[in-house]
Amino acid sequence: MAQTLRQSDPDFEAKFAAFLAGKREASEDVDRAVREIIDGVRKNGDKALIDYSRRFDRIDLEKTGIAVTEAEIDAAVAAAPQETVQALELARDRIRAHHERQMPVDDRYTDPLGVELGSRWTAVESVGLYVPGGTASYPSSVLMNAVPAKVAGVERIVMVVPSPDGVLNPLVLVAARLAGVSEIYRVGGAQAVAALAFGTQTIASVVKIVGPGNAYVAAAKRLVFGTVGIDMIAGPSEVLVVADRDNDPDWIAADLLAQAEHDTAAQSILMTDDEDFARSVEEAVERQLRTLPRAATAAASWRDFGAVILVKDFETALPLINRIAAEHLELAIADPEALLPKIRNAGAIFLGKYTPEVIGDYVGGSNHVLPTARSARFSSGLSVLDYIKRTSILKLGPDQLRALGPAAIALARAEGLDAHGRSVAIRLNL
Amino acid sequence: MAQTLRQSDPDFEAKFAAFLAGKREASEDVDRAVREIIDGVRKNGDKALIDYSRRFDRIDLEKTGIAVTEAEIDAAVAAAPQETVQALELARDRIRAHHERQMPVDDRYTDPLGVELGSRWTAVESVGLYVPGGTASYPSSVLMNAVPAKVAGVERIVMVVPSPDGVLNPLVLVAARLAGVSEIYRVGGAQAVAALAFGTQTIASVVKIVGPGNAYVAAAKRLVFGTVGIDMIAGPSEVLVVADRDNDPDWIAADLLAQAEHDTAAQSILMTDDEDFARSVEEAVERQLRTLPRAATAAASWRDFGAVILVKDFETALPLINRIAAEHLELAIADPEALLPKIRNAGAIFLGKYTPEVIGDYVGGSNHVLPTARSARFSSGLSVLDYIKRTSILKLGPDQLRALGPAAIALARAEGLDAHGRSVAIRLNL
Repeated sequence: MAQTLRQSDPDFEAKFAAFLAGKREASEDVDRAVREIIDGVRKNGDKALIDYSRRFDRIDLEKTGIAVTEAEIDAAVAAAPQETVQALELARDRIRAHHERQMPVDDRYTDPLGVELGSRWTAVESVGLYVPGGTASYPSSVLMNAVPAKVAGVERIVMVVPSPDGVLNPLVLVAARLAGVSEIYRVGGAQAVAALAFGTQTIASVVKIVGPGNAYVAAAKRLVFGTVGIDMIAGPSEVLVVADRDNDPDWIAADLLAQAEHDTAAQSILMTDDEDFARSVEEAVERQLRTLPRAATAAASWRDFGAVILVKDFETALPLINRIAAEHLELAIADPEALLPKIRNAGAIFLGKYTPEVIGDYVGGSNHVLPTARSARFSSGLSVLDYIKRTSILKLGPDQLRALGPAAIALARAEGLDAHGRSVAIRLNL
Repeated sequence: MAQTLRQSDPDFEAKFAAFLAGKREASEDVDRAVREIIDGVRKNGDKALIDYSRRFDRIDLEKTGIAVTEAEIDAAVAAAPQETVQALELARDRIRAHHERQMPVDDRYTDPLGVELGSRWTAVESVGLYVPGGTASYPSSVLMNAVPAKVAGVERIVMVVPSPDGVLNPLVLVAARLAGVSEIYRVGGAQAVAALAFGTQTIASVVKIVGPGNAYVAAAKRLVFGTVGIDMIAGPSEVLVVADRDNDPDWIAADLLAQAEHDTAAQSILMTDDEDFARSVEEAVERQLRTLPRAATAAASWRDFGAVILVKDFETALPLINRIAAEHLELAIADPEALLPKIRNAGAIFLGKYTPEVIGDYVGGSNHVLPTARSARFSSGLSVLDYIKRTSILKLGPDQLRALGPAAIALARAEGLDAHGRSVAIRLNL
């Protein structure tokens, strides 16, 4: 049973602040182990990958090879249910169409002084995509990470995925093929991250590493950051469902459970202005849990981190919504468009009663890699911008240097940087 | 005397790779000290700021106050040389004009199925700007960090700057006023970062922290990341000057020294196709060093990290330029525009002989906060994008859910996420 917070209670602010400050993850200190693994891969290359995979994944890469072969991918595609392949294709096409709209255009212009300025975007040359093994090995995440890279123009997309006991999720291979992944290696953990960052005999290094992973993978990404770029370090998933009484409690309960089934550290929050409706949703949650295969996970998440927030009305609740800054925000209310302009912090917003968040996980077209743990206050979901970078361009002729030079010299002198001043003055015979 | 690398030498590739792999900074391990300071500020608030400032900056904040007063800023503005204020105003206006062009537009559209999608940009609510004290307390950096925040629409821009022995650079206060900084506090170091991240009685917390600082500041930013957003952690500055023989060696030498005078760990690289020209530039460097106030710093940088790279021609040098991925790249060659489209990795490019990099430091209009240490391969300079974040928007009606729902259900089942499938199926009576 989730906790309930009432906006009308006199101590609501203190309770709400404590709720926001709550941590859902114990931070494992794995840095030392990860440092050793990275050093091992840097020193011994493929041999280290073979050793670690034998130890952690109980697989003999000397037999299987490190690279997944085209024949293996062909076999996975042939064996996959037609319905699933078609659903992945639909998702791929919709993700591509949406992300193509995100490509910024280069800007080159001349200002009134005749100075030419510009911003030019270019793709990162190569990207490494980490895909977890086991139950969290999701083909949809392969699409969400790889398709925007492809749209951005990344030439080389390298996937790594652990193969515990030799098992690979065939749908992950199918998704990789559909998304245009260039190379796949059956390695995981910190050793895979190290291989992507520093290269081995088999795996050439990449420029940036993206994708979710466990504590070891996250620590390895942090440690190789600088040598390569990394994406955000994602925390457990969360949803805030804002719903009025005119909803079927079973629909809303299903949405809360869809988030809760991900992880015991996931968080589902219901915000409503009607206590009776809240109780009906809670009952529906308990009822649906009985028939849910992942009930143990979902029940723990709901009990430990779930919450019902009872508000006076949705207008006065806006500051609370913005403080929660949810990864996923459902607005299951009569007029979601009226609230939308006032919502500032959210990873993604799902409008109306026929837009369950799950659509965004798979086939909406927008990205499902979104900022967690209130970081939507300062960061964005994954997009083509994560796979490109901007170069500034500046061009002056003699006239422009004469016009701007004296101000540059004045500022250089004010900052005590004489060589800076000289670099301009010498060109102007000053 | 800088080292020389010749593309024609048989062992060039090995030498160039070693040159690229060279580290210019000893990483100080200050994490433990910084953790204690952060804990101190979280526990004791203003009192901790007062204690640490007494200890590290030899200043009594109980006498001076933590906040810099409007009267102090007025006095700084009144006392500043008119020429410097005007130069700062010119820089501010040019930075503003350039960065206004960077604002992305919101996108809201309906796809052929009738699904509504969108990307909406909103400003970060508040930003903390760290400004170093002492000789690296640059008014130009205040403009470069604060003006894009203002353009982005950040409501609250909070500046912190240490005041060692009670001294504040008055031009930093002037720049803050011109840029529209909302609040200024005379605290620095890890304690200032902690105050910005967690708040004290006097300083309300912010959502994101930007700006350069020493090892303590960088470590503190890394440690508070997650609670707040942070910008990139900048390393020492660098320039790659690509120059043909038709340059005045003194101009090019001045450009190399402008970079070298920043820091003994700064790096200046000359790439040319003419060995005689290279020798003339080296002689000009030695000559100019004699009259440079910061000669000790510049000479050490040039000796330890400077380099002359002799290439066959600039076309075949392109892969080297892209591998160096310089923060600043000057193209002092006859036809820089011909090379430009093939250059992929650089923070900023300065075209032609009348565009010394120093113009970009101050009055060009583009930002001088740029990716260092080869990170231009995967990241960009500071821009309005660092002060805004994107929210995805998705809206389906019953028809759209009927069209897309079955594919979402198929993928949810394939991933073993039954509650995901149910959240869609329950709305379709499936």
